[in-house]
Amino acid sequence: MSRTITLLESTVEQHQQKAWDILEKCLPFTGRSIRIGITGVPGAGKSTFIESLGRLVVEQGKKLAVVAIDPSSKKSKGSILGDKTRMEQLSKQEHVFIRPSATGEFLGGVASRTREAVLVLEAAGYDTIFIETVGVGQSETAVFNMVDIFLLLMVTNTGDELQGIKRGIIEMADLIAINKADGDNIEKSKQTQAEMQRAVKLFPVGESGWATAVEICSALTGSGIETVWNRILEYRAFAEGNNYFTKRRREQLKQWLHESVYFESMQYLSHSPEFKKRLKTIELQVENEEILPPHAIRNLLREFMH
Amino acid sequence: MSRTITLLESTVEQHQQKAWDILEKCLPFTGRSIRIGITGVPGAGKSTFIESLGRLVVEQGKKLAVVAIDPSSKKSKGSILGDKTRMEQLSKQEHVFIRPSATGEFLGGVASRTREAVLVLEAAGYDTIFIETVGVGQSETAVFNMVDIFLLLMVTNTGDELQGIKRGIIEMADLIAINKADGDNIEKSKQTQAEMQRAVKLFPVGESGWATAVEICSALTGSGIETVWNRILEYRAFAEGNNYFTKRRREQLKQWLHESVYFESMQYLSHSPEFKKRLKTIELQVENEEILPPHAIRNLLREFMH
Repeated sequence: MSRTITLLESTVEQHQQKAWDILEKCLPFTGRSIRIGITGVPGAGKSTFIESLGRLVVEQGKKLAVVAIDPSSKKSKGSILGDKTRMEQLSKQEHVFIRPSATGEFLGGVASRTREAVLVLEAAGYDTIFIETVGVGQSETAVFNMVDIFLLLMVTNTGDELQGIKRGIIEMADLIAINKADGDNIEKSKQTQAEMQRAVKLFPVGESGWATAVEICSALTGSGIETVWNRILEYRAFAEGNNYFTKRRREQLKQWLHESVYFESMQYLSHSPEFKKRLKTIELQVENEEILPPHAIRNLLREFMH
Repeated sequence: MSRTITLLESTVEQHQQKAWDILEKCLPFTGRSIRIGITGVPGAGKSTFIESLGRLVVEQGKKLAVVAIDPSSKKSKGSILGDKTRMEQLSKQEHVFIRPSATGEFLGGVASRTREAVLVLEAAGYDTIFIETVGVGQSETAVFNMVDIFLLLMVTNTGDELQGIKRGIIEMADLIAINKADGDNIEKSKQTQAEMQRAVKLFPVGESGWATAVEICSALTGSGIETVWNRILEYRAFAEGNNYFTKRRREQLKQWLHESVYFESMQYLSHSPEFKKRLKTIELQVENEEILPPHAIRNLLREFMH
């Protein structure tokens, strides 16, 4: 399983070819999981939350896999390892697989092979998949586009002006969990819950027909974690009931196709030594203001495509 | 001028070729302007602000051009026209050119020919260019990558939980202007100014060495608008003094080149009827789960590129 994912992420053509052969053989055994996207504002305690929710899921007899998209890995390669260490307890359990997904070079740092990894994991029998992402940049949209349910982890407002999260993320969330609702924080968390419940009502209900749920929990004490999990199951039943579950997956497949046109072209071109060489020459011409980038590239492409 | 930009945005190959010929002749006359990126949270009064700042700039004998990147145009085509109407007074003035830049199909709705439009405008003698963008999604990054100075327009906190803007935008801003500082709002605006001044100090100073300035203003009464403009001039002098101005532009040119590889490939492929036809077939195969998107596209590209 791990080896197939590694092959997929390889830049060697033969490795990738092998990986695609394996993957296509896996296809009939994929799709039978619930794919849960988890994002959180910095400081929301995402790792502890995943550990806590993950433990509950495993106790209920599920096979859990956790993959991560880490857009920050370009700058600080260490963060992936850090996460893995923090989820140490969970990773030691049977029926749990944790794999950080390395960030691809394209799309501003959004991992490109996460969808494929999910399929491999499903074929291996994992029925619950967490795909986690850091709450910055465009990786949430990428994760949103590959999951069945999207969970946003928050904490009660700390008064920090900079805590503000993207408006778009709230709109994407099917479920908001306010973590760290323990000790002195419970009352404030309840207030934030009420505020968020009012806030999400301002948005029109999405295509699923599901109204975004807001819960409080504490990954530390475990309180409320089961409620969060029940909400996820509730959402699944709801979306399966009105066929949105299938519809969303079908649309995601289409979108994957269109993203692939972009991503695979870039891969293709960037693996050509001739293309790279010519690009270097153009870079000099552009710097000397002899030619404009789009024009130069258009001319170059005309040679590389028919 | 307008016609060249229209040719650039045309999907007809001959039009684009003509546009590139014109543009390359313009090249020696470009670059002699200050390019100012303006973004704002919804409700910050961006149009009125641009109108007010624009009037001041023209009074000082400058030639002003305003171009817009509107990522929302996909959903509501009307918003561009709306903006133009709202800037009616400014658009009537001599030495002012206002052109909304249509949103390209790629990059999640970021206009692709705005950089080119700026060059055309510069060659035509415009020495002050406003590039405005709506404060959502990824268009700010696109604008940031094509301007000399990036201005973020805010208003004093209205208590609305959803006003939260992307952390990244604050980090990108060279200048923050808190608008609507008039009447009862003045005191609150000053408080927000102080808060923001404290907040920006939390970020490390960028490569330019310039510390983000925070000002209050009222586009309605005109108060503070001159201060904002003076800050822009101050930034320019500062960045020219330490050579960051030239360096930033050179880096932007390089980045433009790399974006072009992506954008022009997509254009190239999407204009091929054969490619489109094959893509349709693949779409069906993907829906029937016969093949995976990346694999199918890789096979297809192998035929279209050598």
